[in-house]
Amino acid sequence: MFQKRFILLLKTHKNVFQQRNLSADVGFIGIGNMGVRMANNLVKKGRKLKVYDVSKAAAQSVTGAHVCSTPEEAATDVDLVITMLPEGATVKKVLTADDGILKGINKNSLLIDSSTIDPLDAQELHKITKEAGIKFLDTPVSGGVIGAEAGTLTFMVGGDEGVAKKVEPYLMQMGGRIMHCGGPGAGQIAKLCNNLILGISMIGIAEGMNLGAKMGLDLNTLNNVINTSTGRCWSSDTCNPVPGIMPNVPASNNYDGGFQTKLIAKDLALAQNVAVSCGAPILLGSAAHQIFRTMAAYGYANKDFSAVYKFLQGQN
Amino acid sequence: MFQKRFILLLKTHKNVFQQRNLSADVGFIGIGNMGVRMANNLVKKGRKLKVYDVSKAAAQSVTGAHVCSTPEEAATDVDLVITMLPEGATVKKVLTADDGILKGINKNSLLIDSSTIDPLDAQELHKITKEAGIKFLDTPVSGGVIGAEAGTLTFMVGGDEGVAKKVEPYLMQMGGRIMHCGGPGAGQIAKLCNNLILGISMIGIAEGMNLGAKMGLDLNTLNNVINTSTGRCWSSDTCNPVPGIMPNVPASNNYDGGFQTKLIAKDLALAQNVAVSCGAPILLGSAAHQIFRTMAAYGYANKDFSAVYKFLQGQN
Amino acid sequence: MFQKRFILLLKTHKNVFQQRNLSADVGFIGIGNMGVRMANNLVKKGRKLKVYDVSKAAAQSVTGAHVCSTPEEAATDVDLVITMLPEGATVKKVLTADDGILKGINKNSLLIDSSTIDPLDAQELHKITKEAGIKFLDTPVSGGVIGAEAGTLTFMVGGDEGVAKKVEPYLMQMGGRIMHCGGPGAGQIAKLCNNLILGISMIGIAEGMNLGAKMGLDLNTLNNVINTSTGRCWSSDTCNPVPGIMPNVPASNNYDGGFQTKLIAKDLALAQNVAVSCGAPILLGSAAHQIFRTMAAYGYANKDFSAVYKFLQGQN
Amino acid sequence: MFQKRFILLLKTHKNVFQQRNLSADVGFIGIGNMGVRMANNLVKKGRKLKVYDVSKAAAQSVTGAHVCSTPEEAATDVDLVITMLPEGATVKKVLTADDGILKGINKNSLLIDSSTIDPLDAQELHKITKEAGIKFLDTPVSGGVIGAEAGTLTFMVGGDEGVAKKVEPYLMQMGGRIMHCGGPGAGQIAKLCNNLILGISMIGIAEGMNLGAKMGLDLNTLNNVINTSTGRCWSSDTCNPVPGIMPNVPASNNYDGGFQTKLIAKDLALAQNVAVSCGAPILLGSAAHQIFRTMAAYGYANKDFSAVYKFLQGQN
Repeated sequence: MFQKRFILLLKTHKNVFQQRNLSADVGFIGIGNMGVRMANNLVKKGRKLKVYDVSKAAAQSVTGAHVCSTPEEAATDVDLVITMLPEGATVKKVLTADDGILKGINKNSLLIDSSTIDPLDAQELHKITKEAGIKFLDTPVSGGVIGAEAGTLTFMVGGDEGVAKKVEPYLMQMGGRIMHCGGPGAGQIAKLCNNLILGISMIGIAEGMNLGAKMGLDLNTLNNVINTSTGRCWSSDTCNPVPGIMPNVPASNNYDGGFQTKLIAKDLALAQNVAVSCGAPILLGSAAHQIFRTMAAYGYANKDFSAVYKFLQGQN
Repeated sequence: MFQKRFILLLKTHKNVFQQRNLSADVGFIGIGNMGVRMANNLVKKGRKLKVYDVSKAAAQSVTGAHVCSTPEEAATDVDLVITMLPEGATVKKVLTADDGILKGINKNSLLIDSSTIDPLDAQELHKITKEAGIKFLDTPVSGGVIGAEAGTLTFMVGGDEGVAKKVEPYLMQMGGRIMHCGGPGAGQIAKLCNNLILGISMIGIAEGMNLGAKMGLDLNTLNNVINTSTGRCWSSDTCNPVPGIMPNVPASNNYDGGFQTKLIAKDLALAQNVAVSCGAPILLGSAAHQIFRTMAAYGYANKDFSAVYKFLQGQN
Repeated sequence: MFQKRFILLLKTHKNVFQQRNLSADVGFIGIGNMGVRMANNLVKKGRKLKVYDVSKAAAQSVTGAHVCSTPEEAATDVDLVITMLPEGATVKKVLTADDGILKGINKNSLLIDSSTIDPLDAQELHKITKEAGIKFLDTPVSGGVIGAEAGTLTFMVGGDEGVAKKVEPYLMQMGGRIMHCGGPGAGQIAKLCNNLILGISMIGIAEGMNLGAKMGLDLNTLNNVINTSTGRCWSSDTCNPVPGIMPNVPASNNYDGGFQTKLIAKDLALAQNVAVSCGAPILLGSAAHQIFRTMAAYGYANKDFSAVYKFLQGQN
Repeated sequence: MFQKRFILLLKTHKNVFQQRNLSADVGFIGIGNMGVRMANNLVKKGRKLKVYDVSKAAAQSVTGAHVCSTPEEAATDVDLVITMLPEGATVKKVLTADDGILKGINKNSLLIDSSTIDPLDAQELHKITKEAGIKFLDTPVSGGVIGAEAGTLTFMVGGDEGVAKKVEPYLMQMGGRIMHCGGPGAGQIAKLCNNLILGISMIGIAEGMNLGAKMGLDLNTLNNVINTSTGRCWSSDTCNPVPGIMPNVPASNNYDGGFQTKLIAKDLALAQNVAVSCGAPILLGSAAHQIFRTMAAYGYANKDFSAVYKFLQGQN
């Protein structure tokens, strides 16, 4: 109790006041595996950052950034606020809490959420920010930790195009491509639609290759056939799930790195919710979801999702 | 050349016995939707054909070909015998019947089967022909009626490479590409593996696009996102299932033409049998099979399989 | 009757304060298709009711009950408060709103929620009520509108057994059976586990019967075989999906009445969420969910879920 | 040639002659795990048996039976011939081979096939035997090795009812129940329909119980709820897949005994073929098939199929 009053005292009289007035280019909230790499890239490109994370240690891992005590502080006196958080409820809380973004953010600042969250939550964020008079975009990314590190992420953007134009210079310092997908939530929806297809086609390639292998085909030959035929897809020609077919893919690196099974399972769960909300049947998407869930139950949660090839091989 | 004129002379003046000795370049057995087009292309490229089909009318539809009364007759005194039939049991029967191919075929002739059949049946055909001292290849095609018409089929070849080299000039008169897939049955296996993946990824694209549509996305935009992302596949960038996204695809032509739902369902049934025989789980392949079966129960049997997009839209 | 007129008199002449002090046995909140029947049964058995619904007209449909203006009012001065609402978020809102249950409920009153909601939401309700010092149970029902009308519902109860004992007399006036399933949320979890199995086995019976029919079997004979064999289940021996096999089931009544397809789809969506939360793969459950979703897209949303038999028959 | 004549000489003059004329009640062909138990029961009940198996050692394992050298011999001079073989092609071969059943069987003898085979094969057997003037029934069994041992098998009978009446006394010496399912092949079809449902509902129970367990429910309680609710089925109330819930079921015996995963997978493969032949979608049946196939890839091929509960638990 004493301690708290003492801090309040400090806040009133000294450095916290100054902290709040510290101006920076970007306020970055959520310093996880993705966030730290994105934030570091912004710093490298010359942006001044204020960062916040529930874990102070995490926040401190961004080189040269000013560590803040609250989302409010990180959102104060910056041109752009970026959130990169695990789920929609967290983003909403960080936005609307007593010490949240909306308390600090300037009406001229821009706000983007690069988390992968339920599109319905994203649309609620658009509504809340609109009512608060804040310009907001949903800007989920694809490319994973590797893309975040290399600064080659793809941003899928939902919301006003004019706002998107203004945010572009920042995004291009963290990524290699920006795709404007439509209005509020469209970035999230497009990402989920893409990942739904990705999960399905990766399992498809794994099933086809495993079937060919068990029937005695040479898999390099089979993959050439597929890649020049109607079975061709990103999972066959860019991120093949069979070890040794392609270098520098997770399959050739013990399924480490890449897009973790638990993360595509999370995306497919979101897709499932969205599909229910709008009455779209996703027969294979739902089956794919369960296959990744089953894989997780067999030790593959942290492996790249292309490990479905190995899962199908079994253990006899 | 002299020999042929002489024979024609005989034909005019003499009897059916002599017809049986008529020599030609190719004996073509099985004049269905695919066969008639493939045979016509051979004739156009200057090959002399003897043809046989259970339906004499069908056989007569090949311009300029000699119509035979039995498979034996069609297989006699030709350089190459081609079979293009609906299923393995039929091919086997046409091969081994009392008036079958093996009764007529010359030891120096080549024999290829371009039907899509169970790889296990194909391997039995390899065994039977080997015992009979006949050079044989399984050479199923992809490209459908359109590819057969245009002479742009892809041949997937299983069997001896030396034999494949000899057959190549003929195949290139009916198709645009030859892929040697491996030993006996490898052509059939590779085709099924590819079509298994194709069936799965087409449904995947349809589910993703339908989900996007129900969530209000512009589908041209969504398709651009997919085609530049990890969801990209033949079904998104070459044969999109959404009407109006691409010209000259079945989806933009009321799902007519293309690869009929009943035919991919047939291929997936074959894949299922093969998968059972070798113990390869095909969780999505099996689900895809059932989805195409269900579509067939809703009037889509003769429509292109990309009509799964329309099937998912429902009828409310 | 006298009492009611007297109350109305009071209402007319006096003030809201007195209304709030009106004492009754039960406060019933949520007067939908189920709620109205359950509430009416309580009235018939002699309970005095205070009722609330967002639709005043709905609230007025309970014969002889006092219609309240807020959940708070309905929860004031009663022995038991019952909520019967469409989803967890609504129950939480009705509980915690400024004019919500917690504002009115007496510490000695009991509170039960008979809605079918996400078990994770139910567990949150247990937590909220515990902190507020209110005795709470989750008590979802099975038996549908017919069971509600007839007073034969089954209550699946989660929470303290002592509390359950006290609530029992009320439950037995609306239902025929009470099953204590375990601690907080256990009623909801058990219901979802049961309905997951139900959805799967109903589709199983429909597939088996449809297969038998297409192969020419007499379906009465086939059903006898199943009912005396290992395929026997509630969906074969109590609520058969084939029209004409059993009287008085939805299948023999144009699939009207019973358990609507959209409602089992809702339950399977909840089961899906719960399964994701605890890492339990539900491969068939998920497929069943999608089949009911697809049925809904073909006009079966308001038909009994046994109409899956008809859906499988197709439309050719 | 000489050798053969020599044998014929022996046959004419000595013991083989007598063997061929040896009269018995039943000729039993196919002495595997099931056959040996069924044959032994017939012997115990006082029937004289002639037996044949490709493995002479297997044939000799039937106590007190006369071991024959050919199916023909086993079928000669008996009242009833029974076949119990692994697949349709084998039954057909044993029937029509040069030393097959049709060569030896008397026109007044009865012939039944208790193998589980493709109904389409069974219907072909009906056709072949009809042309040969032999009375034939398809009589597949359920009950497994345990039922065969105990003499409590259920026979599902397809074909003429009059013939079925005559065969009944024999069947009741090997089993506890006879169900006449309809015309030619109906026994096989009914069995497959039942086992399709069985496979689906067993997985359903396993999914529901595993979900309940992961959510913290007591499984005895949950099973009681299910057994008194709409999820009730043979897999919940008679052969529960959770260890310890019921005594004397495979789940409580390390999943040994019972109905092996590889055998239900075989039945579901047959069901799949039949479903394709008649155009019946089996969406869950097909998924169930693949789940059992996947289980087989994880070491469960020889375990009871209720081990799907354990499979779902995973290995983390």
